[in-house]
Amino acid sequence: MPNGAMEIQNRAMGYDRTATMFSPEGHLLQVEYAEKTVRLGSASIGFSCKDGVVIVADRRKKEELIKEESANKVFEVDEHIMASAAGILSDARVLVEKAQIAAQQHRVTYESGIEVESVVKDIANQKQLSTQYGALRPYGVSIMFAGLTNGKPGLYVVDVTGNYFEYNATAIGENDTKINNILKKEYKENITADEAIKLGLKIFGKVLGDKFKIERFDVGVINEEKKLRKISGKELKDYK
Amino acid sequence: MPNGAMEIQNRAMGYDRTATMFSPEGHLLQVEYAEKTVRLGSASIGFSCKDGVVIVADRRKKEELIKEESANKVFEVDEHIMASAAGILSDARVLVEKAQIAAQQHRVTYESGIEVESVVKDIANQKQLSTQYGALRPYGVSIMFAGLTNGKPGLYVVDVTGNYFEYNATAIGENDTKINNILKKEYKENITADEAIKLGLKIFGKVLGDKFKIERFDVGVINEEKKLRKISGKELKDYK
Amino acid sequence: MPNGAMEIQNRAMGYDRTATMFSPEGHLLQVEYAEKTVRLGSASIGFSCKDGVVIVADRRKKEELIKEESANKVFEVDEHIMASAAGILSDARVLVEKAQIAAQQHRVTYESGIEVESVVKDIANQKQLSTQYGALRPYGVSIMFAGLTNGKPGLYVVDVTGNYFEYNATAIGENDTKINNILKKEYKENITADEAIKLGLKIFGKVLGDKFKIERFDVGVINEEKKLRKISGKELKDYK
Amino acid sequence: MPNGAMEIQNRAMGYDRTATMFSPEGHLLQVEYAEKTVRLGSASIGFSCKDGVVIVADRRKKEELIKEESANKVFEVDEHIMASAAGILSDARVLVEKAQIAAQQHRVTYESGIEVESVVKDIANQKQLSTQYGALRPYGVSIMFAGLTNGKPGLYVVDVTGNYFEYNATAIGENDTKINNILKKEYKENITADEAIKLGLKIFGKVLGDKFKIERFDVGVINEEKKLRKISGKELKDYK
Amino acid sequence: MPNGAMEIQNRAMGYDRTATMFSPEGHLLQVEYAEKTVRLGSASIGFSCKDGVVIVADRRKKEELIKEESANKVFEVDEHIMASAAGILSDARVLVEKAQIAAQQHRVTYESGIEVESVVKDIANQKQLSTQYGALRPYGVSIMFAGLTNGKPGLYVVDVTGNYFEYNATAIGENDTKINNILKKEYKENITADEAIKLGLKIFGKVLGDKFKIERFDVGVINEEKKLRKISGKELKDYK
Amino acid sequence: MPNGAMEIQNRAMGYDRTATMFSPEGHLLQVEYAEKTVRLGSASIGFSCKDGVVIVADRRKKEELIKEESANKVFEVDEHIMASAAGILSDARVLVEKAQIAAQQHRVTYESGIEVESVVKDIANQKQLSTQYGALRPYGVSIMFAGLTNGKPGLYVVDVTGNYFEYNATAIGENDTKINNILKKEYKENITADEAIKLGLKIFGKVLGDKFKIERFDVGVINEEKKLRKISGKELKDYK
Amino acid sequence: MPNGAMEIQNRAMGYDRTATMFSPEGHLLQVEYAEKTVRLGSASIGFSCKDGVVIVADRRKKEELIKEESANKVFEVDEHIMASAAGILSDARVLVEKAQIAAQQHRVTYESGIEVESVVKDIANQKQLSTQYGALRPYGVSIMFAGLTNGKPGLYVVDVTGNYFEYNATAIGENDTKINNILKKEYKENITADEAIKLGLKIFGKVLGDKFKIERFDVGVINEEKKLRKISGKELKDYK
Repeated sequence: MPNGAMEIQNRAMGYDRTATMFSPEGHLLQVEYAEKTVRLGSASIGFSCKDGVVIVADRRKKEELIKEESANKVFEVDEHIMASAAGILSDARVLVEKAQIAAQQHRVTYESGIEVESVVKDIANQKQLSTQYGALRPYGVSIMFAGLTNGKPGLYVVDVTGNYFEYNATAIGENDTKINNILKKEYKENITADEAIKLGLKIFGKVLGDKFKIERFDVGVINEEKKLRKISGKELKDYK
Repeated sequence: MPNGAMEIQNRAMGYDRTATMFSPEGHLLQVEYAEKTVRLGSASIGFSCKDGVVIVADRRKKEELIKEESANKVFEVDEHIMASAAGILSDARVLVEKAQIAAQQHRVTYESGIEVESVVKDIANQKQLSTQYGALRPYGVSIMFAGLTNGKPGLYVVDVTGNYFEYNATAIGENDTKINNILKKEYKENITADEAIKLGLKIFGKVLGDKFKIERFDVGVINEEKKLRKISGKELKDYK
Repeated sequence: MPNGAMEIQNRAMGYDRTATMFSPEGHLLQVEYAEKTVRLGSASIGFSCKDGVVIVADRRKKEELIKEESANKVFEVDEHIMASAAGILSDARVLVEKAQIAAQQHRVTYESGIEVESVVKDIANQKQLSTQYGALRPYGVSIMFAGLTNGKPGLYVVDVTGNYFEYNATAIGENDTKINNILKKEYKENITADEAIKLGLKIFGKVLGDKFKIERFDVGVINEEKKLRKISGKELKDYK
Repeated sequence: MPNGAMEIQNRAMGYDRTATMFSPEGHLLQVEYAEKTVRLGSASIGFSCKDGVVIVADRRKKEELIKEESANKVFEVDEHIMASAAGILSDARVLVEKAQIAAQQHRVTYESGIEVESVVKDIANQKQLSTQYGALRPYGVSIMFAGLTNGKPGLYVVDVTGNYFEYNATAIGENDTKINNILKKEYKENITADEAIKLGLKIFGKVLGDKFKIERFDVGVINEEKKLRKISGKELKDYK
Repeated sequence: MPNGAMEIQNRAMGYDRTATMFSPEGHLLQVEYAEKTVRLGSASIGFSCKDGVVIVADRRKKEELIKEESANKVFEVDEHIMASAAGILSDARVLVEKAQIAAQQHRVTYESGIEVESVVKDIANQKQLSTQYGALRPYGVSIMFAGLTNGKPGLYVVDVTGNYFEYNATAIGENDTKINNILKKEYKENITADEAIKLGLKIFGKVLGDKFKIERFDVGVINEEKKLRKISGKELKDYK
Repeated sequence: MPNGAMEIQNRAMGYDRTATMFSPEGHLLQVEYAEKTVRLGSASIGFSCKDGVVIVADRRKKEELIKEESANKVFEVDEHIMASAAGILSDARVLVEKAQIAAQQHRVTYESGIEVESVVKDIANQKQLSTQYGALRPYGVSIMFAGLTNGKPGLYVVDVTGNYFEYNATAIGENDTKINNILKKEYKENITADEAIKLGLKIFGKVLGDKFKIERFDVGVINEEKKLRKISGKELKDYK
Repeated sequence: MPNGAMEIQNRAMGYDRTATMFSPEGHLLQVEYAEKTVRLGSASIGFSCKDGVVIVADRRKKEELIKEESANKVFEVDEHIMASAAGILSDARVLVEKAQIAAQQHRVTYESGIEVESVVKDIANQKQLSTQYGALRPYGVSIMFAGLTNGKPGLYVVDVTGNYFEYNATAIGENDTKINNILKKEYKENITADEAIKLGLKIFGKVLGDKFKIERFDVGVINEEKKLRKISGKELKDYK
């Protein structure tokens, strides 16, 4: 039976109606549908650099009436960790807030910044739970975390299922496959943060073609000085 | 498959029956239906001004038997924060009450007014939760919060999904797109509260045409003196 | 598609089966059905008067075997607050009891009568909750509260959704639209309690026609002396 | 659409499958079905008399093997309160037991008998709850409570919905309408307990016709001496 | 509509699928189905005698490999109370164990044996609960309790619904109607325990015909000495 | 209606879909299906002997890669109690672990071995519960417990419903009826443990025919010295 | 009825829709579907050796952008225990994390490493639970644990149902049957860790054919020195 036919069959039989049901082939279809939501979201590209981490995020169009900072797609988790997301924005917001709270609690308790992977694990666990308990729906969002742990850059993506990997560079959201293919060719491990911003914008230029406008992008950089610096609008034109 | 056909298909398959089910395209249809409720509600326009914040709210017709103040669509959250809503009014009422309680608790604990965004976040979290837990339905309401944080004006809208942005000016409820298009052209960042009231009424004039009557509107202003002032009825005619 | 056809469609698709499901048009059909229950109940008319508050309630027929007081449709919440209801009487009873308990607790704690709106808010919150949690059904009842807050008359109706307004005068239950239309013409803000009783009976006379009998009605008055006085039977004939 | 057709329609559409679902006409059909159970039960007639309260209860046939007292349909709640029921007997039993416990607790706490209406309210609240929470079914029983509060007789019936009234005299169970119609004609407020027993038996004679046998009946009397006295079998023949 | 047709109709409509649903005629069909399980169980006959209580229980065939005592259908609740059951044996077992625990706790607390009816009430309440809460199924078992309360014999049967009566003599399980009809004729109130055993066996002889074998029966006797004595096998032949 | 037809009917009507639903004939079909799982499991034969208890368990084929002891079908509950199971092995594992914990706790608290029946009761209660609560599925396993209580051998089987009996000898799993029939003929009460092992192997020889291989079997013996001794592989050949 | 037909039948009847429903043949179909997920995962081979334990895990292709260590399929549970998994990776991650926490807690409490089987049991219990409670779905993953207990090597696999065995050598994931068949021939109990790595790679070479690339594999070794050593990439070529 070809894949399309199996899909129609599975829908007709209702295997795709709850997140806690396996299809006869062993798939969690509700989770796969939630993953489609992620691909509908605008893209973010993250980089682990020689001198820090960088996220270049597309917020598509500048909503004129929205305050610049409020629509910024790079979120501060703590001064040494930032995040970006693709998918359902409200889901992203509550998960990033959980991350912020975990980071604050760590700072209060230990008087130091939390490890990036520790935050990542917390959020990943929340997500896995939401795919296994019948009373919940999966979080419809992929989240990219980037930050420094003891001065060492780390870039992570937590997917819809609650799994995560650490990356040298990667993309989430629309065109993620295309972007990742370019990254595989152009990313070098000794890239600097400034070079990464330029590469990110260059890749978006390739992928978006005529739709590319510098105003669409939010950039976040955390380098050796450890503090998140956000760049957008005019300031960003220097990197073009 | 055209969108209409997909919609019919999705309904026939029941993907739109619970708020915790994704459609095969990755949509939460119950949430989208709740958003329709919002567009059925009468509109409110909010402004962030040079000297404060303004909400101009349409309550459609003056119900003669209802006490003027009771039907007022501008709600006081605290003396420095107001709100307006579009959608299911009882949902709005309980959420605004939660906001009032959060503001009171802050005042009691810290002897100062709560930050506007802090209230906004609380309400947004409640809403996101209601779209993810199977035992609940989403709140069918968009809420606009406007107030001062350390003297600085802030205007926010929390949508049905539990996401929010900060705006220079924006509208919720019926004709929101039309109103926002006019706002994009006519709003200027250095607008004063008085000018904003006039602009709000002028926009309603354009959008409502013959149905426009000054009696339909409730206005709330919070300016540098920080206290919410409500204007309606005759007093409002001065702004026409 | 005409409204009737959409209704049939929505029923066939099951959008009206649980209180936590929105129809594709953004309606909560179970809540709307509960509202029909309210219109099946006998009517009550409430008045905010110069010198107090008045409720004129129709209990339809005098059940001979029921103790007069027991079937009285005007309920005492506290000595300064009364209530009447239309819809499912047992739902009304438990909600009025909750109101009584809130009033008693306030009296015990603060040694003064509770504000009318405070009671109203409590009951409204209970009702909103019952329309949002899947494990419950909406309360099938509208409740009218009338009382004095610091000597000032207040008349409120809490509807099925958990929303409420303060009124000069209004009706709940069968023929509510007809009665409200008459009220809009005949109610004056400086009406006295005695005049209100007469107006209430006159309106019922118009609406019920041949079925009008003075024995059908229970009247409650709270005036400046603050204590609820109930009038019915013979005593009421003086007001005709 | 005639009523019968609507009923068929409502059943086909499943509006009568859970107690927490309103039909499009605003009815709670599961509650109405539970009320049918009550009408299948054998009848009890209660009287509020000049000198106390009386219940005359039909237990249909004397089950020879059952201990006389065990099948008695008049239950002692406390020495000054009795009850009878029609419908599901196990539901009646647990509710009467709850009433007994409430009465005992009151006696222990206040060293006096509980007010009859206080017991009635407790049971009524339990019942209302069972019609509103999805995890429960409605109690399928009507309960008649009769007793003295400060020497004053009181007769109450709590119906399936959790509503209650106080009566001069009334019937529950099969033929309730017929019996109530006779009561309306023959009951007088100054009736004595002895006369009430005779009237109760006389009414059952009329209603049951050939099936009337004195052995079918249990009588409970609480008079000024306050203690429940049960009469049945031979002793009862004196009242015939 | 004849009964059979109504039954088919009710099944087709699904009124018999959950224990918390009333049929349109006011029946709890799942409870009625559970009662059928009881009639599939082997019978027990209980007697209240002049000098104690007796249960004669049929365990159908002697399972050769099962330890005699383990298959005994007369259960000891406490030294002065015994029980037998018909229906789902595991349900019986857990309920009898609850009874045992209640009896032990009473003995520890009050240093005396618990009243038989007190145990009966506890078990009856558990059963009623299981017919009203949606998360449970009804216990599929009838339980007969027999014992002495202050030296006075008491015989009770708790049915599937959670109702109970006290009996002079009665039967549960298969052929219960037949057995009860014989009991009505042959039981006398001044029967002795020894005569009751004989009568029980005689009745089983009539009802079972050729299938009657003395080995099938377990007998329990509690007489004035208060201790449960079990009789079976050869010893029982003396009573034939 | 023949049995097969009724079965088809019951399946079509869905009476077999949840463990908490009775079929119209009073059966719990999900429980019966779980019992089929037990018959799919490989068999164990248990013996109560003059000088101890014996279990001869078939683990079908020796999985070469699995550690001998790990696949052993005789489980140690405590040094004086062993168990074997047929059905879902993971269900067996968690129930045996619960038994182990109960045994350990007893040993810690009382410094003596727990009674075998006490362990059996605990496990039986867990199983009954799993057949009555809607949120669970029945445990799909029968468990045989064998051990010494104060030196006295005891052999018990807890079935899927949560019922149990004590046996002289019995079998669970595939071919249980065949094996039990042979046991009825060949088992003698004064059998020794050594004879029981030989009888067990002989019976398996008859039932399995060509498939019989000594390597398939695990034997557990607890005799007067009280400690569980396991025999398998070569050592077992001495008993053939 | 042939197996395929029964499968179609069971799907049409919905026996495969929830993890808590048995099919009429006694199967838990949702659990079987979850097991298919495991076979879709890439394989791992585990060895219990003379001088330690070894896991050779295939991670299919080297994702260039993912950090080497992050995609490593051998997880450290504690310095003396490692794990690998096949199936849903997020499920594996949370279960391995639970194992890590159990190991840490043991180390903190007892100042020594936890027994391997103790960790295995914990995880197996979590999994069994997820197949029995209606509010959960089964974990879609098989986990292999390998480690030293008091210097003695132990290799365990916990399957989807929550059952586990200890192995000399075994495989999970795709081609598990093929690999196990080769293992049965080529595994010897006195194998050394180094030989095991070579054997693992050789077997993957046979099974994967042209697709075999040394870069695909992660190896974990725990030998007498007790500390987990990971080998991959170039270093691994020495073992080819």
